[in-house]
This record gives sequence, structure tokens and C-alpha cells, in this order.
Amino acid sequence: MALDTVSPDRARDLNAALKRAAAEVDSALDRLIPQPVGLHARVAESMRYAVFAGGKRLRPFLTLAGARLFDVPVSRAVRAAAAIEALHTYSLVHDDLPCMDDDDLRRGRPTTHKKFDEATAVLAGDALLTLSFGLLADPETHPSGEVRSALVARLAHAGGADGMIGGQMIDMLAPQKAEAGRSYNDQEVILLQRMKTGALFEFSCEAGAILAEAGEEDRRRMRDFARDLGLAFQIADDLIDLLGAEETAGKAVGKDSDQGKATLVSLYGVDKARAEAARLAEQASQTLSVYGSVADDLRALPFFLLDRAA
Amino acid sequence: MALDTVSPDRARDLNAALKRAAAEVDSALDRLIPQPVGLHARVAESMRYAVFAGGKRLRPFLTLAGARLFDVPVSRAVRAAAAIEALHTYSLVHDDLPCMDDDDLRRGRPTTHKKFDEATAVLAGDALLTLSFGLLADPETHPSGEVRSALVARLAHAGGADGMIGGQMIDMLAPQKAEAGRSYNDQEVILLQRMKTGALFEFSCEAGAILAEAGEEDRRRMRDFARDLGLAFQIADDLIDLLGAEETAGKAVGKDSDQGKATLVSLYGVDKARAEAARLAEQASQTLSVYGSVADDLRALPFFLLDRAA
Repeated sequence: MALDTVSPDRARDLNAALKRAAAEVDSALDRLIPQPVGLHARVAESMRYAVFAGGKRLRPFLTLAGARLFDVPVSRAVRAAAAIEALHTYSLVHDDLPCMDDDDLRRGRPTTHKKFDEATAVLAGDALLTLSFGLLADPETHPSGEVRSALVARLAHAGGADGMIGGQMIDMLAPQKAEAGRSYNDQEVILLQRMKTGALFEFSCEAGAILAEAGEEDRRRMRDFARDLGLAFQIADDLIDLLGAEETAGKAVGKDSDQGKATLVSLYGVDKARAEAARLAEQASQTLSVYGSVADDLRALPFFLLDRAA
Repeated sequence: MALDTVSPDRARDLNAALKRAAAEVDSALDRLIPQPVGLHARVAESMRYAVFAGGKRLRPFLTLAGARLFDVPVSRAVRAAAAIEALHTYSLVHDDLPCMDDDDLRRGRPTTHKKFDEATAVLAGDALLTLSFGLLADPETHPSGEVRSALVARLAHAGGADGMIGGQMIDMLAPQKAEAGRSYNDQEVILLQRMKTGALFEFSCEAGAILAEAGEEDRRRMRDFARDLGLAFQIADDLIDLLGAEETAGKAVGKDSDQGKATLVSLYGVDKARAEAARLAEQASQTLSVYGSVADDLRALPFFLLDRAA
């Protein structure tokens, strides 16, 4: 497999695999999110609105494709994938709130607090976060309580104060740091991204290995792959944010740079950022070479994501 | 033990037991909540501000006292108790937000979003919620993965869309229902309370039985006790809200009735509400009579809580 480009055939295969994963996880989420009934129906209604917004389901794809490396069937891995997507969705709902990023649109439609109201959006996020742990702990996710607890513990770590939430806090503090003449340097931006998006990428990839009760070497490989993938993905996102058109992203473009937030693109410049993303993509792909052709989809993914920002 | 009053001796014992439980759980929380270090220190700082606010630690007391019925040592039960208090604290932080109950004070000091800012309060709540599941899933909580997963699953249920969060949603909708001439009736208020506060009370009491791997009959008894206790507690709270002075509660008084929210006190009147609370307290106490004197503290608690509102 060529390492610096994705052939049209491979891109088509990967696109199909992404679509299959999205269909699998959407059907699981539809089954697993409560139905809107009773006096509190608005909670489930807003959870469903937030979750079924046409997302790419990238994290569930990572979980399903990762599980495949370790012979875990889709039917088993899909609950963990759904839990991860529920947690990811909660983070989007809360990040969009007026007191956070204050976004009115996501993927071209009103954000949850615009469609409902702020209180409902807070509760929908809280409920999705709670659901994600409930799903992982349910005996249907895996027969071993040890495995289920390990999934919960790792997700709590990835999504917690020293993971995703900490990353969002660092991001929230960026404008006031910039105003004080203390914009983040490249190491700080990398830390921010690893926490804010990388940690959940890592868990998404590692979950398949945990479900298979694979050893630490396999788990480490999945995390290493995810870390490089996550950073490459973020650079691609920043490039789109800088260069892209509003229609492409389905959200306000150029917002981060408007707020004076440092990104690897603003710090390195477009050319060096693109080169760094390509290096990370290659490194990520190389990490999974030991698994042979079953890893082809995953190994092509970093390049596929970079192509969006080419 | 007399069922309609608490002797001064028993009240003194219970007070001491509540203080001991609070000290145990405070020390555990101090150990278990992340330290405020790094660029994201503000997350841990705000989590700690919210958690160490001088709460009564009623739910941790229920867990520790419940665990005692089944010979689970405090050292084992205290992590579950800390997890429950973390989850309870998150719910207070989010409920206080401007878009929810919009409270500036809690226990006489600024609420988390007043002390920090709204974004930080949202993140502190999210991080406390996430932490509570991480704590339960950690092998230090119990050697059995099955037990840890059961704790996570039950807490996710109690705190989720069909539990605490659903109850908060029903509560949020009360003013607009009232405006439309559709104030909640007593059955709807009871449902609201059972979801909003009762569900977490139930889990707090049941957790000890789960830690002991006790059978379904024991677990049901703990839930039954908690359900009656929770409702009696809520009536007592409503009585304080109606009759109490602002200093006593440390928060704005009469707020619920100002917003036209129905409570069992407003629906039944003070006398009938008080009688119903006494009946529930007696029933709760009776449920635990099978456990003998080891249950004395728990059995006295409902009367003790009612005495506050006498």
C-alpha cells in the first residue's frame, strides 16, 4: 500500500466501510437511546436530535475497525461504539452552548440549545454522558465484568478532567491567554489537542483490543495509532477552518483564528503543517503494519482524512 | 425504638454517625478528585470548590450505613460513597446554572458558575459526573468486575434520562405547565420527586448490598427504604422552603412556590403533608426492622430529617 496517497479503489472501499459502520452504530443508538415517553419525554427527544444529526461516526468506525483486528465481531463491538458516539455527542452539545463556543449551527442545522433551549441541551448532554457508561457496564456489552469495568474506567479517563474535559478547558482559556500576550506555543497546542480530541480517539481505537482481552502491546499500538491519527485529523480540520468554505464545513469557518486561538497551522504555516500531518499519517499507518491486510482500512484512514484538506 | 420520635440519645448518636461518614467521604474525595495542576488546573479547582462546600453528605451516609448492614467495611464502601457524592454534586452545579434554576448562592456561598464562570461550571459538572463512573469501575472499589459493573450500571440508571435527569426535566417544565393551567397533580409530583431525588437515594442505599453481593430481597428492601425516605425528605424540604427562614436553608426560600411549582405541601396543605411524611418515615423504618440493632441509625434517619421541619 502506498503511504502518501489513497488510491481511488482504496478510497471507495474505505468510504463504504465508513458508511457500513455508521449504519451499524446508528441502528444500535436508535435501539439504545430511551424512547421519548412520559412527562420527561423532552430528554430523550433532545438526545435523539443531537445524536441523529448526520455525523460521520468516525469514532465508532475506529472501534469497529479496531475490533476487527482482534476478531471481535461487529455485533459485540457495536455497543461500545455506540457508547463512544454518545459520549462524543454530549461533548458537542455542551461545547456548542452559549457559555462555551456559542455555536448556532452544527452540520448545517440548529444546535441542540437552539432547537430546544439551553436547559434542555445541558440535560441532553448530561443524559448522553450518563448513558455511555450505562451501555458499557451492561452485561450485553461483554460477558466479562472485568472487561466491562475496564471499558468504563478507560472511557472515564479519556473523557475526564485530565482528558477531553481538560482539553476543552485549555481551549476555553486560549482567548484570554492570547490577550495577555501568552498564546499557546506548539507543545501546548499539541497537549490541548491530545486531550481534547486525541484521548477519545485513543479509547475508540483501544476499545476493540480491550473487548478482545488483548495484551498491553496490542493496546499500546492502538493508542499510538490513534494519537498520530488524532493530531493529523486536527491539523486537517484546522486547514479546512483556514482555507475552507462555510458550506463545506457546515459551520462557521475561520472562527478559531478570529478569536486569536493558536493552532498548529497558525504556528507552523500551511506548508509545514501539511508536511507534519503527512508525517503523522505515515507513522500511524506504519504502527498497524504488523496486522496485515485486515488493517488496510484503518491504515488508509489518516491519508483519507488528509485528502479532505488537500 | 419509638417510631414517631427520635430520643435525644439517638439523635446524638445519629449526628455523630453523620459526622463520621462526612469525614470519611471528604477524605476520600480529597484523595480521589484530581489535583489542580497543568494548563487545565481550573477544572480540578472548580470540581473541588463545588464538592467541598460543607454538604451534609447524606447520600454517602446512606451508602456507608447501608454497607454496614451487610458487613461491608467502611474502607471498601467509601469509594462508592464518594462516587455518589461526586454525581450528586455535579447535579447541583448544573441545576444552579442560569439556564436552569439560576441560583447565585448555595449553602451561603457563591455557586460554582458565580465563583468561576458558566463554562467552567458546565465542565466541572461534566468532570464530576465522569469521575463518579471512573471511581466505581476502578479495581480498588471491589475485586469483582461483576460488582463494579453492576454499580456503574445502577448508578447510570439512577442518574440517567429515566431517573434524576428526567426528574429535573419534569421540574423544569413545571412553570410552563402551570401557566397553561396544567399544574402537576400529586401523582405527577411524586413521580417527579422519585426521579429527581429518589432514584439516587435508592442507589445510595442499594450500593452497600451490591458491594456485599447480597441477594435481590436485600437489595429490594434497601430500595424500598430509600424510596420512602426520599419522599419524606422531600416533603420536609418543601416544608422548610415554605416555612423556613433564609438563613436556615442557606439559599433563597419560597422559590418553588413563587414559580407556581406544585409540591406535596402545596397540594396537600401543611398538616396532611406532615402526616404523610410521618407515615412514610414509619414505613421506611419498618422496612429495615429485620436487620436488628445494626440498622438503628438508618431507621432513625427519616424521623431525624423530619424533625428539621417540625
